[in-house]
Amino acid sequence: MADSLTNPSEKAGLPPGTLVHVGPAPTAAGRVTLYRYTADQFETFPVIGLDDILRHRGQGASLWVHCEGLDMIDLIEAIGRHFNVHPLVLEDILNTHQRPKFEEFDDYLFAVVKVLRSGRALKVRHEQVSLLLFADVLFTFRETADDLFNAVKLRLSGAKGRIRILGLDYLAYTILDTTVDNYFVLADTMEDAIEAAESDLLHQPKPKTFATIQLLRREMVLVRKAIAPLREMLLALQRSESPLVQERNLPYFRDVFDHTLRVIDTMDSLRDLLNGMLDIYLSSVSNRMNEIMKVLTLFASIFIPLTFIAGVYGMNFDYMPELHWRWAYPVLWIFFIALPVFLIHLFKRKKWL
Amino acid sequence: MADSLTNPSEKAGLPPGTLVHVGPAPTAAGRVTLYRYTADQFETFPVIGLDDILRHRGQGASLWVHCEGLDMIDLIEAIGRHFNVHPLVLEDILNTHQRPKFEEFDDYLFAVVKVLRSGRALKVRHEQVSLLLFADVLFTFRETADDLFNAVKLRLSGAKGRIRILGLDYLAYTILDTTVDNYFVLADTMEDAIEAAESDLLHQPKPKTFATIQLLRREMVLVRKAIAPLREMLLALQRSESPLVQERNLPYFRDVFDHTLRVIDTMDSLRDLLNGMLDIYLSSVSNRMNEIMKVLTLFASIFIPLTFIAGVYGMNFDYMPELHWRWAYPVLWIFFIALPVFLIHLFKRKKWL
Amino acid sequence: MADSLTNPSEKAGLPPGTLVHVGPAPTAAGRVTLYRYTADQFETFPVIGLDDILRHRGQGASLWVHCEGLDMIDLIEAIGRHFNVHPLVLEDILNTHQRPKFEEFDDYLFAVVKVLRSGRALKVRHEQVSLLLFADVLFTFRETADDLFNAVKLRLSGAKGRIRILGLDYLAYTILDTTVDNYFVLADTMEDAIEAAESDLLHQPKPKTFATIQLLRREMVLVRKAIAPLREMLLALQRSESPLVQERNLPYFRDVFDHTLRVIDTMDSLRDLLNGMLDIYLSSVSNRMNEIMKVLTLFASIFIPLTFIAGVYGMNFDYMPELHWRWAYPVLWIFFIALPVFLIHLFKRKKWL
Amino acid sequence: MADSLTNPSEKAGLPPGTLVHVGPAPTAAGRVTLYRYTADQFETFPVIGLDDILRHRGQGASLWVHCEGLDMIDLIEAIGRHFNVHPLVLEDILNTHQRPKFEEFDDYLFAVVKVLRSGRALKVRHEQVSLLLFADVLFTFRETADDLFNAVKLRLSGAKGRIRILGLDYLAYTILDTTVDNYFVLADTMEDAIEAAESDLLHQPKPKTFATIQLLRREMVLVRKAIAPLREMLLALQRSESPLVQERNLPYFRDVFDHTLRVIDTMDSLRDLLNGMLDIYLSSVSNRMNEIMKVLTLFASIFIPLTFIAGVYGMNFDYMPELHWRWAYPVLWIFFIALPVFLIHLFKRKKWL
Amino acid sequence: MADSLTNPSEKAGLPPGTLVHVGPAPTAAGRVTLYRYTADQFETFPVIGLDDILRHRGQGASLWVHCEGLDMIDLIEAIGRHFNVHPLVLEDILNTHQRPKFEEFDDYLFAVVKVLRSGRALKVRHEQVSLLLFADVLFTFRETADDLFNAVKLRLSGAKGRIRILGLDYLAYTILDTTVDNYFVLADTMEDAIEAAESDLLHQPKPKTFATIQLLRREMVLVRKAIAPLREMLLALQRSESPLVQERNLPYFRDVFDHTLRVIDTMDSLRDLLNGMLDIYLSSVSNRMNEIMKVLTLFASIFIPLTFIAGVYGMNFDYMPELHWRWAYPVLWIFFIALPVFLIHLFKRKKWL
Repeated sequence: MADSLTNPSEKAGLPPGTLVHVGPAPTAAGRVTLYRYTADQFETFPVIGLDDILRHRGQGASLWVHCEGLDMIDLIEAIGRHFNVHPLVLEDILNTHQRPKFEEFDDYLFAVVKVLRSGRALKVRHEQVSLLLFADVLFTFRETADDLFNAVKLRLSGAKGRIRILGLDYLAYTILDTTVDNYFVLADTMEDAIEAAESDLLHQPKPKTFATIQLLRREMVLVRKAIAPLREMLLALQRSESPLVQERNLPYFRDVFDHTLRVIDTMDSLRDLLNGMLDIYLSSVSNRMNEIMKVLTLFASIFIPLTFIAGVYGMNFDYMPELHWRWAYPVLWIFFIALPVFLIHLFKRKKWL
Repeated sequence: MADSLTNPSEKAGLPPGTLVHVGPAPTAAGRVTLYRYTADQFETFPVIGLDDILRHRGQGASLWVHCEGLDMIDLIEAIGRHFNVHPLVLEDILNTHQRPKFEEFDDYLFAVVKVLRSGRALKVRHEQVSLLLFADVLFTFRETADDLFNAVKLRLSGAKGRIRILGLDYLAYTILDTTVDNYFVLADTMEDAIEAAESDLLHQPKPKTFATIQLLRREMVLVRKAIAPLREMLLALQRSESPLVQERNLPYFRDVFDHTLRVIDTMDSLRDLLNGMLDIYLSSVSNRMNEIMKVLTLFASIFIPLTFIAGVYGMNFDYMPELHWRWAYPVLWIFFIALPVFLIHLFKRKKWL
Repeated sequence: MADSLTNPSEKAGLPPGTLVHVGPAPTAAGRVTLYRYTADQFETFPVIGLDDILRHRGQGASLWVHCEGLDMIDLIEAIGRHFNVHPLVLEDILNTHQRPKFEEFDDYLFAVVKVLRSGRALKVRHEQVSLLLFADVLFTFRETADDLFNAVKLRLSGAKGRIRILGLDYLAYTILDTTVDNYFVLADTMEDAIEAAESDLLHQPKPKTFATIQLLRREMVLVRKAIAPLREMLLALQRSESPLVQERNLPYFRDVFDHTLRVIDTMDSLRDLLNGMLDIYLSSVSNRMNEIMKVLTLFASIFIPLTFIAGVYGMNFDYMPELHWRWAYPVLWIFFIALPVFLIHLFKRKKWL
Repeated sequence: MADSLTNPSEKAGLPPGTLVHVGPAPTAAGRVTLYRYTADQFETFPVIGLDDILRHRGQGASLWVHCEGLDMIDLIEAIGRHFNVHPLVLEDILNTHQRPKFEEFDDYLFAVVKVLRSGRALKVRHEQVSLLLFADVLFTFRETADDLFNAVKLRLSGAKGRIRILGLDYLAYTILDTTVDNYFVLADTMEDAIEAAESDLLHQPKPKTFATIQLLRREMVLVRKAIAPLREMLLALQRSESPLVQERNLPYFRDVFDHTLRVIDTMDSLRDLLNGMLDIYLSSVSNRMNEIMKVLTLFASIFIPLTFIAGVYGMNFDYMPELHWRWAYPVLWIFFIALPVFLIHLFKRKKWL
Repeated sequence: MADSLTNPSEKAGLPPGTLVHVGPAPTAAGRVTLYRYTADQFETFPVIGLDDILRHRGQGASLWVHCEGLDMIDLIEAIGRHFNVHPLVLEDILNTHQRPKFEEFDDYLFAVVKVLRSGRALKVRHEQVSLLLFADVLFTFRETADDLFNAVKLRLSGAKGRIRILGLDYLAYTILDTTVDNYFVLADTMEDAIEAAESDLLHQPKPKTFATIQLLRREMVLVRKAIAPLREMLLALQRSESPLVQERNLPYFRDVFDHTLRVIDTMDSLRDLLNGMLDIYLSSVSNRMNEIMKVLTLFASIFIPLTFIAGVYGMNFDYMPELHWRWAYPVLWIFFIALPVFLIHLFKRKKWL
């Protein structure tokens, strides 16, 4: 749930491969669950140590080990040692500031993606999900525990559906798919916020509207940074020739790739809309300035000459013949009324007002 | 006819391959028609169930099954099962928020394109058309029923022309071509709207003109999102080595590719024009502000000094010799007239006004 | 001479390959001329029907058939049938809204380019030129008849020079070269207009100057759209392995390719200059606004306090001792003069004015 | 520690391969240290001449020769001659205005990177680090001496860890990794500065805030210039087939490549944020202008008409009946109070204020 | 020394390969010099006709024929005929509006680069240098004669150094290197001008500063156009498999390629800085407008109400009791002083001023 752009510097100076959890401190103790399934069976076990995993291997069963919370460094280190995982991969799992990526090793595949969810006040919460796919075990690592992957568990526990038959790579696909589908939820939330701001803009643009647009733009920058690398990552995954990705499952990965392209397109469109809204805002500020200036100009242009005339007849010269004319005052009032009428008419015709 | 950018989230959480129609609810019940033709024959049949299709296969005839409306999920599922279509393809047909794409399978080709039409108030209506090309059957799926493909049906029913001879891939090309040609109609409509707005801009720029420009820009963002992927899609189709696309028909697909490039060029040019118009609008707002300020400055700069002079001779000091001069008042009037003349002259020479 | 961006929609709905002239109606009847030449001979013949072409073939002579005007659809159709030209190629020749392109067929090469010429009021006139190169005949199709290719004809009729020796592909190159050289003439005209506008900007920016800049930008968008595809088109032509393009002539095509790159560079530079001029214009509008505001502020800030003082001594209170002082009035005049001097000094020091 | 963009011109005119130190003059005399290590041993020796290096070669030991300061041109020349280094490489080591690059020679690899550190007042200090990797010796050249690589030395001197076992290419990786990790520290500093500026913007935008944003943008341009070429450089290094880079160490180089991509992403995001802040600043300037204009308009629009009325009854006409009415003065005061109330109400309803 | 972007149109209409000098007329008669050298010998000869070149060929000597000025068309034509140079190459040498390029022929290599030098008033002077490399002769063609390549001649005449040993391709490299090094001198000049303008901006932004920025931007557009194609040109040269470029000299060409990348980076950075300065300028114009408006608002808001009050007590009503109060006038003065104090306080608290 990293908000900052750059925290990886927390680890600057440590030797590469040092296992330290880099990221916001977890709010609750982590929990590891093992799901063991075959085409007809499905069981759930809690995991405390490495043995809880090893003892369920074999007999054609597929294991999904799901770690929620990254504070069980000992367990992760033990897994790494036993499964012969490269130290940099373990480091990447624990350091939650990774760029989405896909790496292919001889025995296993490694992928990092970002879960994005809209938090309060339009802030986007980021969470890192790492996948480690072996022939018979899939490890997934998350930062927190919530209901994001509940639908996956439910489908897995249900007897019907392809999920138990199509292999662990299909399960990995399901997790990627859930993650990418979630981006659409985020995009929806953002689009709603954008439309609300747009409607505000048209009716009563306020500095607060502008602040909302800026906030959305800022979040968009961060969201883009998290989603854009997915494109090349999923391309690399599709082109992988590892036997761990079965050819019959390739259409699924192509599908999640298509969704990613679509969500990137959508985010680009939203960004274009936001930029357009900035133009609207600035133009409406200019327009209101024009309105204000017109009011000022109208009042000033009309009353300043009149005030001058009134000032003239307030002068105290001895010889001012008009002062003694009988109808001077009423005639002047006629002038006082006629001049503004004439000026307003003139301004309108010249389109100054 | 999706207006929103992101609705696919409607389906987030469902297992992949679930057949649900995602998109706006259809306004009328769907209709499926089968066109059976050989070089010399042409027949039309309504389709209710899968059997209505299967019974017409064979004897060298080509079948075109045209579904208007996507509410007959049962039929689509039956087609999918019988023709061995990948579940994700069926899902893509029903979920009308797809990105234009082309996918190649062993037995069939699958393509998705967007029909764009200008609705009321410059809003663009989007409709998804999916094509499923088998050796002897072409399925097309649309969201609604209207006269878009009537010209195709007419040409097919007529005895002359190449359409009945050149195979089902030529028919698929005809449908793509009709779709792309329609983009030019849309581009025409937009260009007309742009020219109307441009002429407004030159004569009397109003906030409403600005709103129209913004609306056009917004629609352009959405249109671009629907058309741009066509480029790579048609490139993939041309490079396909599937026997379902005959080599003698490749020039036709190259032609529709050329049209697509042209329409993308045109949309880019229109977008450049729109951006240029924004500059015109903002500059004209600035110019009018300048005009208003000039009026204000003219009035204020001329009358404020005069008012001061009038105020001076309205003072009640005991010893103000000018007050008692015989010609003071007429001389002052000469000054009152000479000063503005001088100031206006000065401002003009200094190009302040 | 298409002005619009999108007219191809005129043909939407017609079956592909229908031969209709799409484009502005020709102003004069078309004219077809045949130039027959060998290394030592050169003859000119008018062409009415297909036979006028066929009877001159053979005996090692090269034929150049030059069509000016596209209204002789019958002749073009006859040529297409006899020379076995693909129907879409014929359609592209007649529909003058093509994107510049190069297509390679077994027996012939097809190329479309745009001739651009500056018309009145900085409007650019577009004309389509199509080339159809066979082993012994080169067909060229233009929309109108003027002196554009006169220099080519002259060189061909002259006894000296390489043009009669190097083959029909060299003749095609000459036509492409003339077309691209013409872009430089256009670029010159535009650069002159830009420089005139730039000089206007520096001396007396007017809304008209801004309109000119916008017009130039608009034309630049259209010109770019016509020239940019030439790049890939000429690249494809150079890479063509067709025997119709002789290897000894490749340096010539590379040369016209270089010129195209140069003209695209030039157009990009001109566009950058135009964008820079927009900035200058907007900034000069702001600057003049500043000037106007300074004038207003100067007058208002100086005279408003003075007027207040004059107003004070115009009050009618019974007890205003200053009114009865002997030197009050002259002293006040000194103040009336000293205050503005002080204020102007202050404003200057604070850089407000 | 080059601040300027272009100093390489200092050397313009000299023959290529001339060994002159181009860059800011060193502040202290240079120092060369040799670290000799095997899996179980680690020794440190000072280096004065070439012999101090040569005498420690052999016996399976790895040597790391670390030059801090580039003023020992004689030593560098001697190394170059003895190790058969290309003269241009020596020139690149001494000229500290290189672009980050990787070059592969038969016997050795050459790499240049930039160390970036935030100096005072947000200015970024640049330092060039060159690496020269032979089979048994790694030369590193820096401009100054500080604690940047102390952690590397410490790890090397410690008995545990992979660093002594994985070869000299791993040591080179460690130096690259330290350099890239340092970019994150810089990015952190910049992000803090950006956030401080952002908070200033929201509470009290001042021209100084704008100057800070501009300064950050400027530094960002320079930082980008130093970091961006790293991308292709590390790609080339990964693809190198030189035996000097062991395959088992490739994951490490891939890791530092990932970090580089991440830091480039981060810098791009920061730049986007900075551009967004410029918009905020300009918009807040406009908003404040609006506020100021409203105040002015309010005062002017209310008091100018009132002053006119007061002026009218200050006129000295003989026949002004109102002057003699008993309640005229109090009634006028009621008007003086009612008019502003009415005008403020009107302006509010028309949303002018 | 072409200033214009587009002059090549001067030649439009001439047959390709016509040898005419296109470019500004030379100011002085051209001069051709032949440098003949072996590892131990160096001689200089003036060249009038082709024979002056031919008689020095052979005996293992390398010849460098350096033409300064392009008015000796006869000589160039004679060289072209004797050395069998393609007519288009000769044309490119004489037409000084070429894009930098590299062309490979069977017997010779041809390269065109641009020498850029800062002239007066920040204007950049362009000069074209063409290189024609044969096995034993290197021809170079320049537009004018100055001291640019004096350092090269000096190094060649000196007994030491690699230049006489490494072959004619090394000499060609030296000329390219001198040209590219010169770009850094230009970049330095521009950076100085930019820094001067930047310092002006911070202290006293004037329209003249803005004009300088615009001029620099304009020159940058032209410089970029001249330098950018060098990138691909030098890449092509490096990849050339011609025996005329020796493999041992490739590192030198790679070095000049690196320098080119660096100078392009630098120019891009300078352009970014210039764009940033435009923002500073526009923002400072806005800020100064704000300052001016504040002054105006302050004066108007304070004195307009006071003037009204003074106007009120200048009215001539018969019944105005305040006029007869003893302390009315002094009390009013207290009010006249207290109101501004209060208003200024209020404005400050509301951050209007």
